[in-house]
Amino acid sequence: MSEGKPKIVEVGEKVLKANDKVAAELRQSYSDNDVKGVFNLISSPGAGKTSLLENIVPRLENPAIIEGDIATSRDAQRIYELTDRVVQINTRGACHLDARMVSGVFPDFSLAGVDYLFIENVGNLVCPTGYDLGEDHKIAVISLPEGEDKAAKYPGIFREATICVVNKIDLEPYCGVNIDRLEEDILNVNPELKLFRVSCETGEGIDELVEEIKK
Amino acid sequence: MSEGKPKIVEVGEKVLKANDKVAAELRQSYSDNDVKGVFNLISSPGAGKTSLLENIVPRLENPAIIEGDIATSRDAQRIYELTDRVVQINTRGACHLDARMVSGVFPDFSLAGVDYLFIENVGNLVCPTGYDLGEDHKIAVISLPEGEDKAAKYPGIFREATICVVNKIDLEPYCGVNIDRLEEDILNVNPELKLFRVSCETGEGIDELVEEIKK
Repeated sequence: MSEGKPKIVEVGEKVLKANDKVAAELRQSYSDNDVKGVFNLISSPGAGKTSLLENIVPRLENPAIIEGDIATSRDAQRIYELTDRVVQINTRGACHLDARMVSGVFPDFSLAGVDYLFIENVGNLVCPTGYDLGEDHKIAVISLPEGEDKAAKYPGIFREATICVVNKIDLEPYCGVNIDRLEEDILNVNPELKLFRVSCETGEGIDELVEEIKK
Repeated sequence: MSEGKPKIVEVGEKVLKANDKVAAELRQSYSDNDVKGVFNLISSPGAGKTSLLENIVPRLENPAIIEGDIATSRDAQRIYELTDRVVQINTRGACHLDARMVSGVFPDFSLAGVDYLFIENVGNLVCPTGYDLGEDHKIAVISLPEGEDKAAKYPGIFREATICVVNKIDLEPYCGVNIDRLEEDILNVNPELKLFRVSCETGEGIDELVEEIKK
């Protein structure tokens, strides 16, 4: 049994290499379709990825959304209220999206005329980080009630992301979490990360985030 | 590349079988040491597992704690304020604890005289579920701000757990989440689950949870 661990690592590398190949094909396809920006949203369950999309989608021209969940199509149904350019992937137990799953939605789901593509990953702050989906940017979403110390304890996504959304800032007076300290912890892990303080309840900070996405 | 998926499944099964063997050894060791109860705490990052332990530990005789984190020993340091019977496992990137990692803390970390052993898993609502650590009970922890629909979207842990703690209920007036609907969603997945409404801030519900643990 002692050789169990090296085996896992080896297969893990193979899987990631296979993923990278499909991700490169996806990237080419996004480019061929003149998609201006592709964003991979990663967070813990319940940090507010879908609520964020509900706020962002109406402010952008020609958005499309791929929803990733282990089960249910609840998120896609929520987005469908705003646009019919949405598709749900159910991973059937898998803890992250991989490039092959995303690839599987095309060509039924057309990218023609899409300017901004959002991929909402499975709610998981750890595993989705390693899987390239051909995106331009990973957006890390963290909600204030999760606490000040998450970046130090789960550094992977904060290293990989280029944009970080601190959501649910309207709860600051009630949840005993200090936004400045939370952001300091994040910037300790990655000083280059662009931070946006947002409340999907009050709409605070959404405009600034949308401006960044349009860049 | 088309054979990538079957390969992963096969290795996954091997890994889980190897894990089950070590978990059985752990279970035997807990029994040999007359540990009354072993609890594996599983939740998203920031749901409040460590805060819960800070509330529970002082109310139990002879507790011991194994802390699992990808990085840092912050959680173990917090618990160390209450008892020196705590050890930190750093998984170095891995998204869950497995039985071998837990096994690695013994015999340096002694179980002699321990009545209750708590294993705080890596913050991840998905991956830790499949790895038996020899525990008697899995405790699922969900915090109110995560939303009402988590059990349907991440059913695995709610199926496997015997106890479910709904934490941060003091935030109900502010976060727009209805506890009754959240619990209904959980019980739809697993009607046998014992639910406890808790606030680590106000102490509400802690006594009832401690009584259950003592059983």
